[in-house]
Amino acid sequence: MTRATLLTVTAPTRPASADEHGADRAAGDAGFVLADFGAPQVRITDLGITRGDGVFETIAVIDGHPQALELHLGRLAHSAALLDLPEPDAAVWREAVLAGVADYRSRNGDGGELFAKLILTRGIEGEGRPSGWVFVDEGEDFSQQRLGIRVVTLDRGYRHDVAETSPWLLAGAKSLSYATNRAAGREAARRGADDVIFVSSDGYALEGPTSNVIVLADGVVRTPQTDQGILAGTTQAAVFDFFEERGYPTEYRRISADELRDAEALWLVSSVRQAAPITALDDREYPVDAALTADLNAYLLARTDLEHHHHHH
Amino acid sequence: MTRATLLTVTAPTRPASADEHGADRAAGDAGFVLADFGAPQVRITDLGITRGDGVFETIAVIDGHPQALELHLGRLAHSAALLDLPEPDAAVWREAVLAGVADYRSRNGDGGELFAKLILTRGIEGEGRPSGWVFVDEGEDFSQQRLGIRVVTLDRGYRHDVAETSPWLLAGAKSLSYATNRAAGREAARRGADDVIFVSSDGYALEGPTSNVIVLADGVVRTPQTDQGILAGTTQAAVFDFFEERGYPTEYRRISADELRDAEALWLVSSVRQAAPITALDDREYPVDAALTADLNAYLLARTDLEHHHHHH
Repeated sequence: MTRATLLTVTAPTRPASADEHGADRAAGDAGFVLADFGAPQVRITDLGITRGDGVFETIAVIDGHPQALELHLGRLAHSAALLDLPEPDAAVWREAVLAGVADYRSRNGDGGELFAKLILTRGIEGEGRPSGWVFVDEGEDFSQQRLGIRVVTLDRGYRHDVAETSPWLLAGAKSLSYATNRAAGREAARRGADDVIFVSSDGYALEGPTSNVIVLADGVVRTPQTDQGILAGTTQAAVFDFFEERGYPTEYRRISADELRDAEALWLVSSVRQAAPITALDDREYPVDAALTADLNAYLLARTDLEHHHHHH
Repeated sequence: MTRATLLTVTAPTRPASADEHGADRAAGDAGFVLADFGAPQVRITDLGITRGDGVFETIAVIDGHPQALELHLGRLAHSAALLDLPEPDAAVWREAVLAGVADYRSRNGDGGELFAKLILTRGIEGEGRPSGWVFVDEGEDFSQQRLGIRVVTLDRGYRHDVAETSPWLLAGAKSLSYATNRAAGREAARRGADDVIFVSSDGYALEGPTSNVIVLADGVVRTPQTDQGILAGTTQAAVFDFFEERGYPTEYRRISADELRDAEALWLVSSVRQAAPITALDDREYPVDAALTADLNAYLLARTDLEHHHHHH
């Protein structure tokens, strides 16, 4: 039974000139088309599969609302720029996400937590034209993880300043080359844990494989500053809003692995799972303020981002 | 015009038990089928595309002969093990490569340099069954690069011992997560160079993004030892054979970036391009012994690997 909605984004990136744009898309061409989720869609020579050469975003969709859509579109563009890909056409991707969500809900009903995944690749080798897809499906059930997760720290192997010294390592880009993130997850499972916090080779706390770290210590809520090859978190920004509304100071700065261990409370936050409180980091146990975390997740799930849609055409 | 041959490997990995094997493949089922190279073959939720979660090999095919086929199959299995993938069924992949080459040549004639690419992914998310493909196509024309290439060194960001200290970083696995290798190639082009030698963060010469480094100094031919997260080179092994037959001692050991710069001659060697002599490394120029390199490439292209085919069934 195929329930998911798949769209092929036929015009995923902005043309170099207005003329080219005119040639690329006829009037009435939205730049995306419905496709068959159950059928193969990717050519075997697409660089997305042969080289993991592309970028992605995963967006939570709550009651039909794609959360932090503009932040995700901005991050897609940022990742694409780090990979020297052409600029994604934000208007096309935005409308594709909304159309995908509408199609999914028209077929499957309005309830539940969904997600939209956006994939932009460098395209078929030799053709010089990026490929794009959006798919919308039901999210995994993260209700248990929102009550608590066990986490281990793993060395990411890079110094904290690697994004500045070696930009070709693509630290901070949400690329399709995520095999090491998956391997870190398997290593965590071998150690009896649910997730990972990466630490730089010189001892700074960084991020999870697919999440940001929130640290509460001395009454201040902090997250590692993003100039360390860390993905700027769309959910982390909302978490800071939540705590600021409750009077907590918030701060971006370098956080040593030792500080992490000495924290009062820790969360991993991400778009679809939202906030998962950490009950154990390596061999240290943490008490969880269940009421605070429940409030946080209620806040995150209720977000409607009073965003304006900026149309560039 | 589609000339390439594509095969879907329907039984890419070895079953956990004989019973399972019986259930998986009927008598007369080779474990692979011809597929349409021009049509999409990969589902959008295959972890090969969404996470670069898989491994690959590229094999040169000269006059119908897949070079170092057994070494490549061995390395595919090694990469799969590093990614905790099930063991590839070598018999199936071997026969798929041979069938693909035969099909290509039956349609396109016998001449020229071809390549076979083997792709094994973790499969469609949630299905727990790996995906596999083999495709055979004409190789790029590397005749100019076999006369000389300009190379820059780039910091790979990892210490030389990262494969031991942080196996989850998958150093030494030929994974589909090659976006950083592609980014390094673009950085080289920005610097006016053709290719890259990666250097560890602690100053050791490692490998190219898709090649091994051969260093001639003081009459000895060396390559960086592979316990530094370096892919064991199938072509590099043949290059050592070539030099040993001519009386050069050969050696695997750590080579500092300084030693690299002080070498008499350098090559990058790989399966399809074979041996490319380095005419410049960063700002230093190297003389090329054109006759020696021509002999080396003639030797590499003439290999017929007197290998026995080991059938496990």
